[in-house]
Amino acid sequence: MKVHHYQEVEAVEAAAGVRMHVVAGPREGAPNFIMRVFEIEPGSNTPFHQHDWEHEIFILEGPAAVRHKDGEILLKPGHVIFIPANEMHGIFNKGNQTVKLICVIPDVDKKGSATACCDTGAKGPA
Amino acid sequence: MKVHHYQEVEAVEAAAGVRMHVVAGPREGAPNFIMRVFEIEPGSNTPFHQHDWEHEIFILEGPAAVRHKDGEILLKPGHVIFIPANEMHGIFNKGNQTVKLICVIPDVDKKGSATACCDTGAKGPA
Repeated sequence: MKVHHYQEVEAVEAAAGVRMHVVAGPREGAPNFIMRVFEIEPGSNTPFHQHDWEHEIFILEGPAAVRHKDGEILLKPGHVIFIPANEMHGIFNKGNQTVKLICVIPDVDKKGSATACCDTGAKGPA
Repeated sequence: MKVHHYQEVEAVEAAAGVRMHVVAGPREGAPNFIMRVFEIEPGSNTPFHQHDWEHEIFILEGPAAVRHKDGEILLKPGHVIFIPANEMHGIFNKGNQTVKLICVIPDVDKKGSATACCDTGAKGPA
């Protein structure tokens, strides 16, 4: 098994004011899905976007909100969000402290590379 | 999307002193992997066992320890554990308060049923 603290895993900038720690994925030998920890600074958000894979999200520290095509839902620690593939979404910091959350995605390319989780281009990582 | 607080999801007893909330899985429409929140009471643990699927675990509240074939590793909040398939493991409460953790597994039966996550029999759920 592999054990580390999420803060020991170097973060990448997933968007302005958004850090992403890829804590369990191809590097650890994970074959099917990838766990990431996001830190979103006050005033920041993950892109409002969609892609052809799902998210399973757990809010560690808030308050935050998830935006969808019809509005927003407020979130506090312990809230869980399932976002199906091809559904618009973005996570917004709604307070004055760092929002922290876990976001799990399938290893969409199944190539064992980290590209599935670290693409900061048009499709975005979140 | 589906949003709920993990405490709104009724728990099942996964082992003595161990509650499991299945917070994102077939019921929410999740196609590939299942997120569960475990609460382990002081003096309790998940079974020391193995199975042919992996775990990705995030410690929410501790202190805890993961047991492996050669010993134990102490864990605090923010620790991440990747446990490959077919490796012996168990999570132990090492303190005086409830240990909380997230444990994600693949939807091993791919049948859309909850059996993969709620089997409390010999193979255990954890």
